[in-house]
Amino acid sequence: MADDKRNAAGVAPPEWPDLSGRLEDFGHVLPIRVYYEDTDFSGLVYHASYIRWCERGRSDYVRLLGLQQKALFEDKSGKGSVFFVVRRMELDYLRPAMMDDVLEVITEVSEMGTASITLSQKVCRGELVLFKASVIIVLLNEQGRPQRLNEAIKRAFDPAV
Amino acid sequence: MADDKRNAAGVAPPEWPDLSGRLEDFGHVLPIRVYYEDTDFSGLVYHASYIRWCERGRSDYVRLLGLQQKALFEDKSGKGSVFFVVRRMELDYLRPAMMDDVLEVITEVSEMGTASITLSQKVCRGELVLFKASVIIVLLNEQGRPQRLNEAIKRAFDPAV
Amino acid sequence: MADDKRNAAGVAPPEWPDLSGRLEDFGHVLPIRVYYEDTDFSGLVYHASYIRWCERGRSDYVRLLGLQQKALFEDKSGKGSVFFVVRRMELDYLRPAMMDDVLEVITEVSEMGTASITLSQKVCRGELVLFKASVIIVLLNEQGRPQRLNEAIKRAFDPAV
Amino acid sequence: MADDKRNAAGVAPPEWPDLSGRLEDFGHVLPIRVYYEDTDFSGLVYHASYIRWCERGRSDYVRLLGLQQKALFEDKSGKGSVFFVVRRMELDYLRPAMMDDVLEVITEVSEMGTASITLSQKVCRGELVLFKASVIIVLLNEQGRPQRLNEAIKRAFDPAV
Repeated sequence: MADDKRNAAGVAPPEWPDLSGRLEDFGHVLPIRVYYEDTDFSGLVYHASYIRWCERGRSDYVRLLGLQQKALFEDKSGKGSVFFVVRRMELDYLRPAMMDDVLEVITEVSEMGTASITLSQKVCRGELVLFKASVIIVLLNEQGRPQRLNEAIKRAFDPAV
Repeated sequence: MADDKRNAAGVAPPEWPDLSGRLEDFGHVLPIRVYYEDTDFSGLVYHASYIRWCERGRSDYVRLLGLQQKALFEDKSGKGSVFFVVRRMELDYLRPAMMDDVLEVITEVSEMGTASITLSQKVCRGELVLFKASVIIVLLNEQGRPQRLNEAIKRAFDPAV
Repeated sequence: MADDKRNAAGVAPPEWPDLSGRLEDFGHVLPIRVYYEDTDFSGLVYHASYIRWCERGRSDYVRLLGLQQKALFEDKSGKGSVFFVVRRMELDYLRPAMMDDVLEVITEVSEMGTASITLSQKVCRGELVLFKASVIIVLLNEQGRPQRLNEAIKRAFDPAV
Repeated sequence: MADDKRNAAGVAPPEWPDLSGRLEDFGHVLPIRVYYEDTDFSGLVYHASYIRWCERGRSDYVRLLGLQQKALFEDKSGKGSVFFVVRRMELDYLRPAMMDDVLEVITEVSEMGTASITLSQKVCRGELVLFKASVIIVLLNEQGRPQRLNEAIKRAFDPAV
């Protein structure tokens, strides 16, 4: 029965509460399982898999911040939608991840610019850092022009702003 | 404190309890989030992404059944390890999945052969079935020869056997 | 000098003549190199890689048939664009492909329906067939409704029609 | 007839001469076609696809240099095989690539260290540079320890050494 799924507040709880990871004081953490698709014939994880995992971390961070809401991304002057793209990445491969590993993607804001955000990301197995990334993302409009970050975006990433 | 993480039985519970999905009476269910990497320029999910998701479902089903235990896969006659490979798939694309969707991969055993298992898999968005697969997997030894399924494997997939 | 690149007919030849494979009497052939990205930790090719390769074969077949021309896909009644999607696939994994292999994707039309095309595809290493696929594609309009194949599409796939 | 495939030197020419790209004075160039699998729902190329393409460029560069020959990688002291892994990458996304584009991956050696090689890679559409990467690869032995580059490897990458 549908009623069975409602919690004390009368609201259906999410079926998979951890699917988008969790917001933490420092930023966001997302669990990752290593599957066949992530590995290569060396027996280790393929080097581009870390890039996909970091993108999942950023997507879920933005999701939990509520930034997927269309309203936030709408240009008040009616010039159309805006979206984030990666402009630059610096990647350090420190230790290999393996098939069946449970990993965590840790995402923090390291710098908030006028038109760009620099994110610091790590892929960890327990306490061990396997991979580090510094990722610069910029906000573009539909014509591909960089846009200033509006207050709603700044506030979402840093409640103290 | 580490102690805080121990449950009533004095054991640390898994940090991400749903990461491998859940065993159900009918078989296994795994939640999937659709990320950028899963889509293509048509705006919908790329057709090979469903294949990757079904493999994740099978891997986590086998994991929760305890079949990843090396002991189970060891040949008593000492001839080395065995592993599952896909021999045949029939795939029906019914409705498109979209960016940001939360989906579920449902996996059931539909037939248990002497040397093969036929799995029935579905990718669903809520009640809606988007994709169906019938997948035949076989057990091979290190020389690539098909092997009979041993009792431990049969029992794991079907407790009634 | 640009002139150096012109052939006897005064036209610059394509720089990479085989990039899209070749049309043959039976249909189309596309060469594929196996890279790291195509393999998994078993040491063999990941099972979804064959699906990606078959899609490349279909895309280049359609390209060399001239069907990428926007004009062909335009609905005379002005109802907007149409595009092909996969409706069903039957896949047989016969022998494994390996890192560094040079393979060929062979694509043939096996049946031409009113609103669908059935393609027969093989992935071969020399004379050896490693993988076989039967793929049904349908033509959809922007609203996702199946469309009848027009004469230009039928003629492109089968000059004898 | 097999004989038909032999060239003037009595040797069968490769069927797909450009499959591994070409060695040039500056290094190596590999053509790339953008397929569905490389794009995402933004309509542009997915950001990790450039990483896969650069790996293909490096693999084919090493292949045409003859470094895939097992002999070269064998440790004279019989300690087993060695292999290259990526240690660090700096990536700049300058302009987007699109579905159906024909691109070229350009690979050059920018620095030759004692135990590492720094490669400079670009993804171009004609004269236009879309993506730049600086990639540090290191040689590891089977235990994961960095190894000095032997003379054969140095000579292969730089005939002047």
